[in-house]
Amino acid sequence: MELKNILVLGAGRSSSALIKYLLSQAQQHHWMVTVGDLDERVAAERVKGIPEGKAIHFNMESEEASRNAVKQADVVVSLLPAHFHGSVARICLAEKKHLLTASYVSDEMKSLDTAAKSAGLIFLNECGLDPGIDHMSAMQMIDKIKKQGGILTSFESFTGGLIAPETDPGNPWRYKFTWNPRNVVMAGQGTAKYLQEGTYKYIPYQQLFTRTTPVSVPGLGAYEGYANRDSLKYLTTYGLQGIKTIVRGTLRNRGFCSAWNVLVQLGCCDDSYQMEAVASMTHRNFINSFLDYHPTKTVEEKVIDQFTISKQGPEMQCLLWSGFFTEEKVGLEHGSPAQVTEHILNKKWKLTLGDKDFIVMWHRFKYQLHGEQKELQAWLTATGEDEVNTAMAKTVGLPLGIAAKLVMQKKVRTAGVIIPVTKEWYDPILAELNQLGISLREKEG
Amino acid sequence: MELKNILVLGAGRSSSALIKYLLSQAQQHHWMVTVGDLDERVAAERVKGIPEGKAIHFNMESEEASRNAVKQADVVVSLLPAHFHGSVARICLAEKKHLLTASYVSDEMKSLDTAAKSAGLIFLNECGLDPGIDHMSAMQMIDKIKKQGGILTSFESFTGGLIAPETDPGNPWRYKFTWNPRNVVMAGQGTAKYLQEGTYKYIPYQQLFTRTTPVSVPGLGAYEGYANRDSLKYLTTYGLQGIKTIVRGTLRNRGFCSAWNVLVQLGCCDDSYQMEAVASMTHRNFINSFLDYHPTKTVEEKVIDQFTISKQGPEMQCLLWSGFFTEEKVGLEHGSPAQVTEHILNKKWKLTLGDKDFIVMWHRFKYQLHGEQKELQAWLTATGEDEVNTAMAKTVGLPLGIAAKLVMQKKVRTAGVIIPVTKEWYDPILAELNQLGISLREKEG
Repeated sequence: MELKNILVLGAGRSSSALIKYLLSQAQQHHWMVTVGDLDERVAAERVKGIPEGKAIHFNMESEEASRNAVKQADVVVSLLPAHFHGSVARICLAEKKHLLTASYVSDEMKSLDTAAKSAGLIFLNECGLDPGIDHMSAMQMIDKIKKQGGILTSFESFTGGLIAPETDPGNPWRYKFTWNPRNVVMAGQGTAKYLQEGTYKYIPYQQLFTRTTPVSVPGLGAYEGYANRDSLKYLTTYGLQGIKTIVRGTLRNRGFCSAWNVLVQLGCCDDSYQMEAVASMTHRNFINSFLDYHPTKTVEEKVIDQFTISKQGPEMQCLLWSGFFTEEKVGLEHGSPAQVTEHILNKKWKLTLGDKDFIVMWHRFKYQLHGEQKELQAWLTATGEDEVNTAMAKTVGLPLGIAAKLVMQKKVRTAGVIIPVTKEWYDPILAELNQLGISLREKEG
Repeated sequence: MELKNILVLGAGRSSSALIKYLLSQAQQHHWMVTVGDLDERVAAERVKGIPEGKAIHFNMESEEASRNAVKQADVVVSLLPAHFHGSVARICLAEKKHLLTASYVSDEMKSLDTAAKSAGLIFLNECGLDPGIDHMSAMQMIDKIKKQGGILTSFESFTGGLIAPETDPGNPWRYKFTWNPRNVVMAGQGTAKYLQEGTYKYIPYQQLFTRTTPVSVPGLGAYEGYANRDSLKYLTTYGLQGIKTIVRGTLRNRGFCSAWNVLVQLGCCDDSYQMEAVASMTHRNFINSFLDYHPTKTVEEKVIDQFTISKQGPEMQCLLWSGFFTEEKVGLEHGSPAQVTEHILNKKWKLTLGDKDFIVMWHRFKYQLHGEQKELQAWLTATGEDEVNTAMAKTVGLPLGIAAKLVMQKKVRTAGVIIPVTKEWYDPILAELNQLGISLREKEG
């Protein structure tokens, strides 16, 4: 059996489950797993003691070294920040290597479709949790409903990376960073697009966290969701042309969005400019810089007045718990509002020893079957083992790992820039995830 | 006397006064005035019957023709949209020609400073009304206060292009398009930065039109202002380091901002994406696409509920007057929300026969003089003659025209990328504007 080389790019917080999965099967399948990271020691930590594992320094900035690393691989799995994926894909194209990512297909990635196709290369994207498992589980159900003769009228899907009930019980946000903190702070910028009862709908950033939808997950209780990016593009991808409602969104615990909205409205999540005098800035100064001058009112009073919220209300509880009104130094030399906000939040939102994260995914399908109106809900939960082996790392990494196996075993053939919405991908990936304890439950009506 | 060639780029709505000014002095000073526009007929209209005037077709897209046009000029005055000015400046640099604009200095323009300096070229920007007359009149006063021994503690400056009382008396916005409509629709995007009582302040777009300042102009009454772009950069430009308050802003009639804020909050001013199904869209559909689905509420009711405004209130009056709830077709094939909004607004905000615009500029200086706290207000108003010879065209075009004369007469020497904040510019320009009937009044205390 021929030796296959897998190159994993990025050894950060979401890589643990993916690398473990690949290494655990490496001997059996004759794989060599190379992990590349800017920090070679972090990569080395991930492969420690496994003969089939190898760590390398990897820096997208040095193109020659990047090309050499890719040249030696058969399949590249990238967990790098999404904006690198255009360049990674271009190198993979030049070196004729398959590429797998969990990122949304960018316009840049899309533009490589024809070239990838004619080179017979698989550039699989959106194959993590969300996007990823959501696509696969939804498509499996949609195809099943259609096969029965059902006509879909509505599809809603919400996913959230939250924290387990026992983690940080006093944290009123019921949230910590379990994913790229920068992406969390900037989430929702741009306009959410979806279809509701036959009408195209658009929610700009400034309204997103006030226009939430209550989501009740069977057996789990009530959450709230906000619309996520462009749901309209999945009308064709999912084969749902003619459906009346389609919306994909992000799930949060109740109360999160109205508190987060205060930060959004103040301008704390803006990454477009560098603030003045960050080096001497306290948390309190930071908040005050987004509020009008007032000769006598306190910073707290100004926030309360500007947003007509209550002093003891949930929004102020969250902001106070995060320390936004303290005289503590921010601790950065320079920064945009988004960078300062991330830095302040990270002081209390960083996962610490024993913290467990908690993933909730929920779909609802409405359809007509033989003249009857039907409804089907499906949901998935996953709880992390600890602050490193998170449910997030598992649910993002395992689909990628299984997909890499399918590619190396030549069980999938369709080349081009694709996402896992076809049977050849979703059936085997969901089946193996099920064996690994990750599966959706279903409920009719 | 040597013949001098002036090239004016752009024959649009703001060019009438500039071109008239230059043509009226052309014979006396031996100038040839060439007016270039994408639409040569529009340019021809501006120079009709004047032997010193010439119209040409000018298109920035065809670089060779642009270079040839610039080559034959001694001074270029550009009224093109601001995003062209980097390219125009590069051509002027290559052909060694002076350039005058009324646009804000972009980073691109700034980067040409050293090159312009060493070529001995004047690239004068921000020399219209606002920016322009505001800079010049403020600097003249600031220098005067400093010369008396005064120490400035606060500088506020607001300018607005409004409509005259007799124009469109039923228009509850008290506003029409007297300047580039696209810029009006997108105004305030980005973050306003200023200094208030010694604290750096930032207002994001989503708060801008709610965080207005009442501005009372002596003898004229009460207006409202919102902060405009980056006031902080004028701390050094104006030599006001150490001042406690500096804010530049835009002036509107009362009620404008809260109504405009509804459009901003809905997402109607977003230019970042193309909407679906614009060809079949009515005004009412357009507004509804930014509102949640509701089985029974009307579009009007949804707006009223979402923004907790009153049915008979000023916001709804403005939106109704502009026809946003009618079943009229938008009349575009494609468009971003900003493009659709501009198109709908233009149906009633376009200046029509006999309409007169009205400019208000207001400064307030606070300073300490020999231990005493002093206050000085200064303000300017200008009323348009009709819908073509607007006060806007006059107050933007005349400073540019006078500046062009100063350059051709070699009365100014400082080369580089500059703005008119020095005596060599503001004294002669303000003196001639005064002769032309444009001057500020002053009031102490």
